[in-house]
Amino acid sequence: MERPAPTETPDDRPDDTASAGPRDAAPAVTLFVCQTCRTPGTPPEDAPQGARLAEAVRAAAHDPDVEVKPVRCLSNCKRGLSAAMVRAGGWSYVFGDLTPASAPDLLAGATLFAGSTDGLMPWRGRPDCLKRGMIARVPPLFFTEEPR
Amino acid sequence: MERPAPTETPDDRPDDTASAGPRDAAPAVTLFVCQTCRTPGTPPEDAPQGARLAEAVRAAAHDPDVEVKPVRCLSNCKRGLSAAMVRAGGWSYVFGDLTPASAPDLLAGATLFAGSTDGLMPWRGRPDCLKRGMIARVPPLFFTEEPR
Repeated sequence: MERPAPTETPDDRPDDTASAGPRDAAPAVTLFVCQTCRTPGTPPEDAPQGARLAEAVRAAAHDPDVEVKPVRCLSNCKRGLSAAMVRAGGWSYVFGDLTPASAPDLLAGATLFAGSTDGLMPWRGRPDCLKRGMIARVPPLFFTEEPR
Repeated sequence: MERPAPTETPDDRPDDTASAGPRDAAPAVTLFVCQTCRTPGTPPEDAPQGARLAEAVRAAAHDPDVEVKPVRCLSNCKRGLSAAMVRAGGWSYVFGDLTPASAPDLLAGATLFAGSTDGLMPWRGRPDCLKRGMIARVPPLFFTEEPR
């Protein structure tokens, strides 16, 4: 099981990302939404529901710490609509089994992740669809597991 | 489907990673092997087969472009033994349904990935278990999908 981590609040952010003024830095988190994913069982002639999800996420995005980008394939095609979140120096996350209605949850999860101080997305406070739909997480490049 | 990419050979590597002499740079690819994964259906009292896979990979590693690190959880627990590959500025890959015998294939895949010139792991030449066991891939932080 993924290790639950304590909830972080925006107040826990490092000073260089907590400014409420104009931002010079890159957004903390990039949220990639697959626009070619299809909900299993839907007719092949239907437009891919992933495009609807990607558009819904883009339209609802409001956190300057989260950049939303469409992507064509996360190679998670068997698990319904998919998205991934990446953060500089942090873990990367892949989610599946999403629906076009998951947009607010994806954005809430991305904001939670952006506010984390340890590079992990907190388990507590994470929207349910990002718990149930957890596909995998990937360590940052220079991660070394600490001995127990 | 993941986009197949042409096979890259070691000769395609940029000059700064192709040196056969002593290496100053960090390895191109980090191969994380989950040591707590269990093969589905095995008794809970058995030691996790992931530990055997992690040890087999470590013992067989020989490419200075590939660093092998054990990790405790990739949150891919339902899909058998798991591993992930990460490369600076490249895509990240998660594989599942591995066995302790997958060590040589994982290392071959990591070497293939290290030699890629576009940050993607080539499809052609990739060991079968890294095709069948593909779980997901994650874009690099600053990736932007090019228009078709």
